[in-house]
Amino acid sequence: MNIQEYMRKIGIQARSSAQILAKTKTGVKNKALEAIAQQLEQHHNRLLEANAKDLEAGKNLASALRDRLVLNDARIANMIEGLRQMIALPDPVGAITDLKYQPSGIQVGKMRVPLGVVGIIYESRPNVTADAAGLCLKSGNATILRGGSEAIHSNQAIAQCIQTGLESVGLPKSLIQVIETTDRAAVGELIRLSQYVDVIIPRGGKGLIERITQEARIPVIKHLDGICHTYIDEKADIDKAIAIAYNAKTQRYGTCNTMETLLIEQNIAAHVLETLVDKYKTAGVELRGCHNACHLNANIIPATAEDWDTEYLAPILSIRIVTGLDEAIEHIRLHSSQHTDAIITEDWSRAMRFLNEVDSSSVMVNTSTRFADGFEYGLGAEIGISTDKLHARGPVGLEGLTSQKYIVLGEGQIRQ
Amino acid sequence: MNIQEYMRKIGIQARSSAQILAKTKTGVKNKALEAIAQQLEQHHNRLLEANAKDLEAGKNLASALRDRLVLNDARIANMIEGLRQMIALPDPVGAITDLKYQPSGIQVGKMRVPLGVVGIIYESRPNVTADAAGLCLKSGNATILRGGSEAIHSNQAIAQCIQTGLESVGLPKSLIQVIETTDRAAVGELIRLSQYVDVIIPRGGKGLIERITQEARIPVIKHLDGICHTYIDEKADIDKAIAIAYNAKTQRYGTCNTMETLLIEQNIAAHVLETLVDKYKTAGVELRGCHNACHLNANIIPATAEDWDTEYLAPILSIRIVTGLDEAIEHIRLHSSQHTDAIITEDWSRAMRFLNEVDSSSVMVNTSTRFADGFEYGLGAEIGISTDKLHARGPVGLEGLTSQKYIVLGEGQIRQ
Repeated sequence: MNIQEYMRKIGIQARSSAQILAKTKTGVKNKALEAIAQQLEQHHNRLLEANAKDLEAGKNLASALRDRLVLNDARIANMIEGLRQMIALPDPVGAITDLKYQPSGIQVGKMRVPLGVVGIIYESRPNVTADAAGLCLKSGNATILRGGSEAIHSNQAIAQCIQTGLESVGLPKSLIQVIETTDRAAVGELIRLSQYVDVIIPRGGKGLIERITQEARIPVIKHLDGICHTYIDEKADIDKAIAIAYNAKTQRYGTCNTMETLLIEQNIAAHVLETLVDKYKTAGVELRGCHNACHLNANIIPATAEDWDTEYLAPILSIRIVTGLDEAIEHIRLHSSQHTDAIITEDWSRAMRFLNEVDSSSVMVNTSTRFADGFEYGLGAEIGISTDKLHARGPVGLEGLTSQKYIVLGEGQIRQ
Repeated sequence: MNIQEYMRKIGIQARSSAQILAKTKTGVKNKALEAIAQQLEQHHNRLLEANAKDLEAGKNLASALRDRLVLNDARIANMIEGLRQMIALPDPVGAITDLKYQPSGIQVGKMRVPLGVVGIIYESRPNVTADAAGLCLKSGNATILRGGSEAIHSNQAIAQCIQTGLESVGLPKSLIQVIETTDRAAVGELIRLSQYVDVIIPRGGKGLIERITQEARIPVIKHLDGICHTYIDEKADIDKAIAIAYNAKTQRYGTCNTMETLLIEQNIAAHVLETLVDKYKTAGVELRGCHNACHLNANIIPATAEDWDTEYLAPILSIRIVTGLDEAIEHIRLHSSQHTDAIITEDWSRAMRFLNEVDSSSVMVNTSTRFADGFEYGLGAEIGISTDKLHARGPVGLEGLTSQKYIVLGEGQIRQ
């Protein structure tokens, strides 16, 4: 197979079917989502068989990677449920906002439109194939999906369900294409198909995302890492602070919105740590702290400079005692990955300063960083959480997969 | 001078002063704009003297380029007036929208924030220095400006006024830095300073913009070209159609929103061209048409295939007779630069189809493409017109120079 030609053909097909999808009404898109859900239901066993092949081939994968690769009854049910939830979400395409008369007499507003063709590059988890395809379909975008080679059989089986579903409602199957080769050169081609692909969304480890961002000749919506902070201010409600700090670390360890560093104001640190350290220890969380933190509690071992810049994704927490809000904000500026950072305080002015001055995709007051999530934010599903500043920042749902064009309505106006 | 070190220093200064500006209140930013305007007023003669040096050095420049380089009383007054208009515009920074309670009890909304550091690369016109600096200042962004080497003395004189103005209200002068070297390597460094610069906005010829887009390691907000179309439908009000088509071509020739191709439905073509050709000829517009257009009017000379893809920026117009809306939309799909395209029709369904199906940054009904402009759209000033799809599309004003972060307000909520 000539990879360059193969990818070019995929690109041309995507661009051409994107034009059809841009004109497709909401009702038809919803029927397609339901048809795909039904296909996945009907071919439940075929999906398990394909997945078994991938698991067999991936016997030697690391256990975390292998876990993500598994399809089982619950995960298939989740994919199907996810597609049905997308049916219920409002269609962002065509929404007209801010239509206002201008002094010249023209009316100027904005209309939401699909981006066109979205390329998604992801690793291991086959459920991304259905989730991403559904979100792109609902937002009017043709999609090119490139999953990990370890999930190739699972992804192809899901792709077949998707394409049968699309065709059953009269839509071209080239709307959602899953790349059939595991040749890595296909990724290199995909991220340079600027004529046919409007945006690349990489999902996976930091290494993958950095490489794609470096090499892409197409805009990338990316999520690098989640080094999230919680700052417990002197004026915090201590009970709330302890509950939130415990939840932000322990509710799930492997997610990007999990707190990795806890900052505590010096005057309340002893009081907070007295209860909190026991709770963390019971949960099995390893605690690494600054000199002052270690001094306050014998269960905290000394942190190294590296700890403040580490996304653990594990039951490990770094703790630093700070002199107040200024030092907390400065620590966050230097070490946060600008994903999600929270302050716990009952002090109005400090809460407002934190909201205004911390430059992260989500900035929170008196709640757990674990809430940084498209579903919790009311976006429905999400295609990822962007740590970029341009276009989409934070959880990216249907709206982040669209753009707005200006519309101008006149009655014969000419410019003077 | 070591260009790499010099640019790195510029970047570090910009990043550090951007933090100060992000916290600066609207009133102080407005005072800075007024102080800069006053500096430009006071040093009017110094600006003219610096410009005279550039004009002397640029004796051999092409006349269009040289014209753009000129500073005179009217242009200086315009710069000053532009800065004062920015004072009157609402500050986009800090605006909170869509704050809504979610089922968990948290309130989720968006807060508008500066992008951070904006790099602007432009050619010849020294007034861009003041316009761009003002827009970036009001939107809370530190700015690195790199003008054309032919305008170096003018730009430095304007920069001095800007920096004195900033310092007079207690802001760091490194908020707005004008690169002092004409070494082209400085551009290459600037577009790779990803650690210190958040976005690059190139303004100038297509060659410059393509090169920067190719080589940048930072997101680029770009404007390529303006091949704008007007389609006169069979159901157009013919008087309005003629007035609009005449205005869209002749009101100014050298602007990106000037119509370059006129599409006319076949059944009304003879009638429309009867009046319109005479008007164009009187204005001195050269007409190049398809076979059918030439057949209808002897003043139209045959167009070549290249004409349909050319941004003339001159008194030349290509004219094509089409069989109807489908052919018009298809021609636009193949040849438009997706800047601005208009339909002239009294038919509701055709107007709606055109609005929905034409994928350009501005899509218009019954009005002149010349209206595609930040000022006419009510944005105040504009930093350019984006033909990109991501982030900012169409005229880019203060809002396009900002982003939105999520804010989450809780009262102790934890995730279940």
